[in-house]
Parts: sequence; structure tokens; C-alpha cells
Amino acid sequence: MSILVVGSVAFDTIETPSGRAERCLGGAATYFALAASYFTHVRVIGVVGEDFTEEHESILKARDIDTRGIEHVDGKSFFWSGSYHDNLNEAKTLSTELNVFESFSPKIPAEYANSEHLFLANIDPVLQERVRSQMPNVRIVCGDTMNYWITGHRANLEKVLKGLDVLLINDTEAKLLADDANLVRAADRVLSMGPKSLVVKHGEYGATAFFSEESFTGKPHITLPFRAPALPLSEVFDPTGAGDSFAGGFFGSLAAAGELTPAAFKTAMFYGGVMGSFAVERFGTERTQQLTREEIDQRFALFRELSHLD
Amino acid sequence: MSILVVGSVAFDTIETPSGRAERCLGGAATYFALAASYFTHVRVIGVVGEDFTEEHESILKARDIDTRGIEHVDGKSFFWSGSYHDNLNEAKTLSTELNVFESFSPKIPAEYANSEHLFLANIDPVLQERVRSQMPNVRIVCGDTMNYWITGHRANLEKVLKGLDVLLINDTEAKLLADDANLVRAADRVLSMGPKSLVVKHGEYGATAFFSEESFTGKPHITLPFRAPALPLSEVFDPTGAGDSFAGGFFGSLAAAGELTPAAFKTAMFYGGVMGSFAVERFGTERTQQLTREEIDQRFALFRELSHLD
Repeated sequence: MSILVVGSVAFDTIETPSGRAERCLGGAATYFALAASYFTHVRVIGVVGEDFTEEHESILKARDIDTRGIEHVDGKSFFWSGSYHDNLNEAKTLSTELNVFESFSPKIPAEYANSEHLFLANIDPVLQERVRSQMPNVRIVCGDTMNYWITGHRANLEKVLKGLDVLLINDTEAKLLADDANLVRAADRVLSMGPKSLVVKHGEYGATAFFSEESFTGKPHITLPFRAPALPLSEVFDPTGAGDSFAGGFFGSLAAAGELTPAAFKTAMFYGGVMGSFAVERFGTERTQQLTREEIDQRFALFRELSHLD
Repeated sequence: MSILVVGSVAFDTIETPSGRAERCLGGAATYFALAASYFTHVRVIGVVGEDFTEEHESILKARDIDTRGIEHVDGKSFFWSGSYHDNLNEAKTLSTELNVFESFSPKIPAEYANSEHLFLANIDPVLQERVRSQMPNVRIVCGDTMNYWITGHRANLEKVLKGLDVLLINDTEAKLLADDANLVRAADRVLSMGPKSLVVKHGEYGATAFFSEESFTGKPHITLPFRAPALPLSEVFDPTGAGDSFAGGFFGSLAAAGELTPAAFKTAMFYGGVMGSFAVERFGTERTQQLTREEIDQRFALFRELSHLD
């Protein structure tokens, strides 16, 4: 039940009202892999520079994450710096240095070929499609994208969307992709582009899943959306990676369940929220790299209590 | 188990992307009373002018709402006109004519004195307090307010807050009242002002309830917040009255339960969402005035399916 994730492994310098962190280990693949590692085995494909040391790699290895697909090349790793001083829901990017990521060409190690689950983190859709096409036997494919690819690389993105079992994006991205400000109509439009289901993340308000008739491998199909809550938090230390941690918890849980059923999907939505809620409690990956499965399941119970009538 | 509601009875001219409606029957007390009438007996205190005819009154009477507390005076009824063309979540007010509402002085008919539940809709906190103080034996008091009273009439509002069992406001109002942009901290601050519990309405994202140690009449107390979903809708015809309809469904359900327990509160939150979701499906009170309890309970089941794991 391995998940293969392809995406960025990076360093982030982050400013929030709670403080500042210099060059934390970050990147979508990192957050995703750490969050998913509590549910299933995870393999990473990415590229790093000389500044990515054994110490950084050990953070992933400590969670039993397979790092053989992280290519080491000359130069510096992807670096991002951002500030959340004005708005905890949206980072103000202070600088982006693609560095070695600029010429990233994902290579799939032979040992990864039997992965049953594939997560295409937010990278160039051309690269997403290349990886997807090299994994013909993968059972479930989830993907992410962002405004930059939606507006500037739509034709390439549309090819990727056709091959997705689940697209995970936020409200703004869903509405932009569909060119419709109403979420339900936007979801219908996005589903008509190919993904079998759509998870829209609402930040502090949780997430909503929308289903097509092809969402599930077995009967019964469901067409009613599903809403998972987020945990009301009195302090958000650092929102960086919350969306990727949601994706990791969601897809990790789904992969562990083995089958794409409505019940497994709903449970996965809750675990997505759980992992997102941990991610923002400390800077960078600090909280997510040191959890126990017991803490995760306690919080899952909290999410249920928070939203269930009985 | 009667609810007494004091608030505006008005006429609204509304423009939305779905159309335009001229001089619909509206006002907070109207929406609240219609929504609550499916759960319990409702009595209204308000003031109207000569333009409020028997035809309008019959809309309330058809729902067995007691209108003896609606005072008829010379002049025109409160009139509001607004547009939602730019933003379905926030009306742009085109005109407000207070008319007979300007000198509104609520009078409680003798027949209303035994009401066990009181809803103070969004009116001048001086009037809210005056009604509250004349109902010393009321068992549960819910109230609403808005930015205008929070910023300009805070001392008067704070007196009202001390006497509330439940304050129902939206995110913006809660954050303004607490002067804190974090919802959880804002809720703590608001609860410290007196209301025993706080329901924050998030529009299309549902609502969250926050509890103090005095929230419930009996044990067990709960401190974890509770989140109720909203129904994802592909078309919002007219958002006017959604918040008051939520309040009507919420308090109607709570009053019918008779006791302020965690289970009754959670169920009431769901019925609030249900009545809010009906309100926006047609212009004005058109949908809310013609429901059946069966339709309401079917939608309640939908809300459960939308948010529950099993």
C-alpha cells in the first residue's frame, strides 16, 4: 500500500505573528510525506541541492519514508520565503528561488515501480503527466495544482485532470479553474474536466468533497457532497504546509484503507483535517515530524465529537 | 413552550443575480417567526404602518403565529432595499427608511407574559434590555446584534449580553465585538462578556457554537466547540433573512426540546442550518412560509449525511 509522492523538497523562511523561522525543511512533498507516513509507507521523488544534508534526510528517514527518489544535484535547493503578517490564510511571498528545482526532471527509481498510490503535488503539470504516464498500474492517483498553472498552463493541466481519481485544491483554485464563483457549480464544472472526485479545502472552515458517478470503485455511489470540519484553533503558529499535510493525512488514510469506498473517503477527509490541524501548531514540520498515531487518533475522535450529533 | 420574538417587521426590495423582488414582506422578526413556527408556538412584538395589510398578516397567521403584539400605527412600515450583485455574502444597502420603526417602543401584551423563551432580534440594545427586563420568568434568552450597535452603542449592548443564554452573530460581528481576528480567542472574549454560549454563523460554511461553563442547565458540561455544516447550494436566490431563519430554526428546535442540554443544542444548530438553507432558495419569505415539517426533517437527514461518518 505504498504512496509515491512527487513534488518539491525545499527550505522555507517564514514570518508569522507568532514568530520567525529560518530555512525550515519544507516543500509540498516533505509535508505530504511526513503526514502520510503515519498511515502507510511513503516514497518521495524530488530534487535537492548541496544544502540538503543527511540531517535533513534523517527527518524523513525517521518516519520510515523512502528517500531513494530524492535526487541530489549541484547547487542550492528550492528556497521560499513568505510572511503571514497581514493574513493567516494567504502568504505574502517575499522571495522564491527555484534553484535546482528549475530543471527538475522526475526519475522513478525501479524500486518505486510497484507503488499502488500516486500523489502529484503542486508542480508543472507537464511533469505531473510524465510521472503519471510512467505508472500505468497505479490504482489511485491524487493531485494538487495552483493558480499559476490554472491560468498559464491550462492545456497541460487539463491532461493531468483527466487521469486523477481525486483533485485536492482550495476554494479560490476551484472557482478559478471553473470560472464560476458558486462552489457547487464550480465543482460540477471541475468534475466534468475529468477528476473522479474533488476535495475543496476551506482553511479554517474545513473541506468539502464532491463526487462524480465514477468516484468509487464499488457500489453504492454517493452524489451528496461530504463536509469535514477543521479544528477551531486559538493560535495558528504557521499555516505553511497545512494544505499538503491535509493531503498527506487524506491520501495516507485512503491508501491504508485500500479501497476507494464512500466510508473510506469520508474517514480520509477527517484524517486530512486532523493532519492539517497539527501542521499549523508549530513552525515548519516541527509538529508533524514528531507525532504518535495515538495523538492522531485522539484528535480524530475530537473531530468527530466536534461535528457529530451523537 | 412559546417563543416571544421582538424585532423588525418590514418590507424589502431585493436585487440579486437571480432577479429582483419588490416590497417583499421581510424583517428579522418575520423571518425568525416563520422559521421557528415549524417547531413551536411563536409570538411577535413589532410595529408596522398602514402599508402592512391583512394580506401580510395572514402570512404569519397561516403559520399560527400570534400577531397580537404587532402594533399598527400611522405612517409607513420599515423599508429596506439592497443588492447582492457584487457579493452574495454581503448586501449593499441601497436605502433604509426606518419610518414607524424609528419611534418603536416594544409593548408586551398581557397574553405574552407567560412566554418561556425570548428572542431579541437585531434592534437597539436599549429596547432589547427593556423587553428582557419585563420578562423576569423567561427560561432561555437568545439575542442577535450587528456592527452598528457593537461600534456605536457598546455600553448598552454589554448590558444585554450579560442576560443572554445564547448570542447568535456572524464571524465579522464576533471578531469586531472581541477586537480579535482569531475566532477561538474572539469567542472566549465574547463569552467573558456574559452570554452563556455563542453561535457564530459562517454563511456557506455553516456555524460554530462555543460554550462557557454555564452553557447548560444540567450536567454534563461540554467545552469543545460544535460545528454544524451548511448545505452546498448551486444557486442562492436571495440571502436576505438567512441569518434570522437560522436563528428561528435553532431557537425553535431548542424551545421544543424544552431543556438546554448539549444534545438539544447540537440538534438545534443543525435545524438552524436547515432553515437557513431553505430561506435562500426563493425571494423573501416565499420558501419559508410554505414548508412542511416533513421537508424540514428530510433536509435535516441530508445535513446529517453530509457531515457524519456513519
